[in-house]
Amino acid sequence: MVKRLVVVGGDAAGGSAASQARKRDPGLDVVMFERGRATSYSACGIPYWIGGAVDSEAQLIARTPEQHRAAGIDVRMRTEVVGVDLDRRVVHWRELDGDGQGREPFDDLVLATGSVPMRPPVPGIDAEGVHGVQVLDDGVALREQLSREGVRRVVVVGGGYIGLEIAEACRVRGLDVTVVDLSATPIGTFDPDVGALIADAVRREGIRLVLSDPVTAIEVDRTGRARAVLTRSGLELPADVVVLGLGVRPDVRLAREAGVPLGTSGGIAVDARMRTEAEGVWAAGDCVESRHRLSGQRVVVALGTHANKQGRVAGINIGGGYATFPGVIGTAITKICSLEAARTGLSSEEAELAGYSFVTAAVESTTKAGYFPGAQPIRVKMIAERRSGRLLGAQVIGDAGSAKRIDALAICIWNEMTVDEVLSLDLSYAPPFSPVWDPVLIAARKAFEAVEEDIRGLL
Amino acid sequence: MVKRLVVVGGDAAGGSAASQARKRDPGLDVVMFERGRATSYSACGIPYWIGGAVDSEAQLIARTPEQHRAAGIDVRMRTEVVGVDLDRRVVHWRELDGDGQGREPFDDLVLATGSVPMRPPVPGIDAEGVHGVQVLDDGVALREQLSREGVRRVVVVGGGYIGLEIAEACRVRGLDVTVVDLSATPIGTFDPDVGALIADAVRREGIRLVLSDPVTAIEVDRTGRARAVLTRSGLELPADVVVLGLGVRPDVRLAREAGVPLGTSGGIAVDARMRTEAEGVWAAGDCVESRHRLSGQRVVVALGTHANKQGRVAGINIGGGYATFPGVIGTAITKICSLEAARTGLSSEEAELAGYSFVTAAVESTTKAGYFPGAQPIRVKMIAERRSGRLLGAQVIGDAGSAKRIDALAICIWNEMTVDEVLSLDLSYAPPFSPVWDPVLIAARKAFEAVEEDIRGLL
Repeated sequence: MVKRLVVVGGDAAGGSAASQARKRDPGLDVVMFERGRATSYSACGIPYWIGGAVDSEAQLIARTPEQHRAAGIDVRMRTEVVGVDLDRRVVHWRELDGDGQGREPFDDLVLATGSVPMRPPVPGIDAEGVHGVQVLDDGVALREQLSREGVRRVVVVGGGYIGLEIAEACRVRGLDVTVVDLSATPIGTFDPDVGALIADAVRREGIRLVLSDPVTAIEVDRTGRARAVLTRSGLELPADVVVLGLGVRPDVRLAREAGVPLGTSGGIAVDARMRTEAEGVWAAGDCVESRHRLSGQRVVVALGTHANKQGRVAGINIGGGYATFPGVIGTAITKICSLEAARTGLSSEEAELAGYSFVTAAVESTTKAGYFPGAQPIRVKMIAERRSGRLLGAQVIGDAGSAKRIDALAICIWNEMTVDEVLSLDLSYAPPFSPVWDPVLIAARKAFEAVEEDIRGLL
Repeated sequence: MVKRLVVVGGDAAGGSAASQARKRDPGLDVVMFERGRATSYSACGIPYWIGGAVDSEAQLIARTPEQHRAAGIDVRMRTEVVGVDLDRRVVHWRELDGDGQGREPFDDLVLATGSVPMRPPVPGIDAEGVHGVQVLDDGVALREQLSREGVRRVVVVGGGYIGLEIAEACRVRGLDVTVVDLSATPIGTFDPDVGALIADAVRREGIRLVLSDPVTAIEVDRTGRARAVLTRSGLELPADVVVLGLGVRPDVRLAREAGVPLGTSGGIAVDARMRTEAEGVWAAGDCVESRHRLSGQRVVVALGTHANKQGRVAGINIGGGYATFPGVIGTAITKICSLEAARTGLSSEEAELAGYSFVTAAVESTTKAGYFPGAQPIRVKMIAERRSGRLLGAQVIGDAGSAKRIDALAICIWNEMTVDEVLSLDLSYAPPFSPVWDPVLIAARKAFEAVEEDIRGLL
């Protein structure tokens, strides 16, 4: 008898799982349900399409439904899975553009249900004119709104990665943009000193930044449309369009209702092979939790790169192979106007919460030899465990050519290197690429000195 | 009694050793001898000064003699150490611009004598108009020659890093440039497929590249000046200036004459703390050999970044601290016209010589998400050990934003990661910085598939 795999969700994780499983086991029947109008697209690319750096929506799509079908996957677009019956081993679905509904049996099931934007519980949050930016269809809707005549003022609620990327996109479109956030610095996963530099860069682009000020309500006009954002300090920020940039939470409704266990973080609990605790049920992408290799905690990190890897791992295992997803260390990167910023491992606050005792060190250097044309400022900050000197976290911020250096530091952390091991690394050097002491190595030197000084203080 | 440190050579290694030793032990007497006119300068920057990207010679100098003196180091410029007497513990010196000579006692001695350009043993090689590019004074002399009226044709002998960098600099100056090399592709430390791409880039800049053709003689005119380079195939390449870009060999004359043991590679033998086998004698920089962490062999790698680190290590140890230099893995990077190229670990040929059995994999990707403006082509090649899948080497080539990614791979190799471990790494992702699968990860995937396929072939 032919085995059947049902995949719920056709973006990064679902699409990868379906493709890999089918590739490994060409006899497998694969049915993939997708609620939206696109499969396997780059959600991370939406801000750049809105800002105009990317010409067309189609460019964001890595694999269309037709391409998936050509690979032997039965793709059901605009079809929502509304229930999972684990005992009968069927999913219930309904068409979003028609009256069709039905059930689909499965042997294996992949839940790749993604995430939903966080919505603060304030009055007016569900009003017309308040936009999340989660799936491609959200991006389409927001872009349409921003193009309407008379739209001039945008308020972005939340100054995280997506919030700032959308704010920049709106600014590029010539709009009047305000970002409001309850924290003292934007992107709270950076240390405050780095966050302050991000704030400066955002303001330099002419974006208004309202910090340490939670949103208390969205004011709605007589037609039921958002017209202003109100804050605790009493600000009234007029808005033709409001965008939610508060991050996302895992969409676990289906899993919860079906009885698939969730983890401590609220995401679907999976093992390293992406198996849930329910027999034959797998999960991958924004809806699952991952092991943080440094804190030991389970965390939900909604990022396309993890979704792709997790989907691939699930698909390989379903197809009869063996693969694991070994966890995350919190690497992230973003471009904020002309500034690049990246982080990996634990921030100072996260290290504190995880129970580490640590020192920090930061250095200013240049992306190329100081005398080389185009050398840009770069700042590298390191967080190192006291006594052992183990590298726990790093943050890089600077102009063009800065941020991607975070990968080197991510790999140091992954391999549990100490800062004095880092400073001896054989990294590449030539004047067009770095000073003779690479900024990463200079930071490691300074962090090592901080560890040593701290030890002398303990004696 | 005050201890005295004598340092022979005042560039990267010597300058670092002197500075660190003095910093750690402020009571130490430090005398540093330098034959040339500059201390602590960037030899790697010379091509960019010749090409005009760097305005002035002064910009290449990280620390002047005056700055060293202000740090308490007794710097003796234009003074050559002509002999070391290990029994009497003195060095003999003579001034190059005067008649002065004398002896200087030492307790500790650092040999940082650098390297000398390789000169093929062919007729005419010592003629006027044949230039090495080793120390800053060589750069000054070459620049002067290139600026002379009537100089139009330059022949560079040797297509390694320095050879190509100088060729490009001459081309930027509007000169007619030919590079001649005995290998089939330039920069022999890259695999031939990567070398072929480098050759294409060089030719696209209008540089003539003569390959697989050894130089047999430098033809000299009646005044004793070089006028053409002759090759085995019978070419006669007219030259107003000839530049030697054949690489360097360690300058070990002083060490050898003094009885300081050399290693198997021809460099001065040192341990991880940069001690030679002679009591109280240390060595660092281009004149020493290092342990290659993959081949296990001793190798001489003349590179400013190693010289700085080794000098620092020697200085810390001399000053009463403890530090080690843990070896090299052959990381190197270069910009050839608009192309960036980098390598780390072993090339296919080196892996073969070191006795490894391996597979290779190469992928083409982009430096940013494919749809993102400014995405550039990048090619990543990996060399992985058969069966184990251990990453042995990697080469990256592409347009702007490609080559510095080699650092990530260098750290993978340093930590003895396998390619399947590499493909799970938590590397940074956002559309302005990479596709959702970073090129490094795609290459690791493909290398892992090659390892797996090879294992299936063995069964």
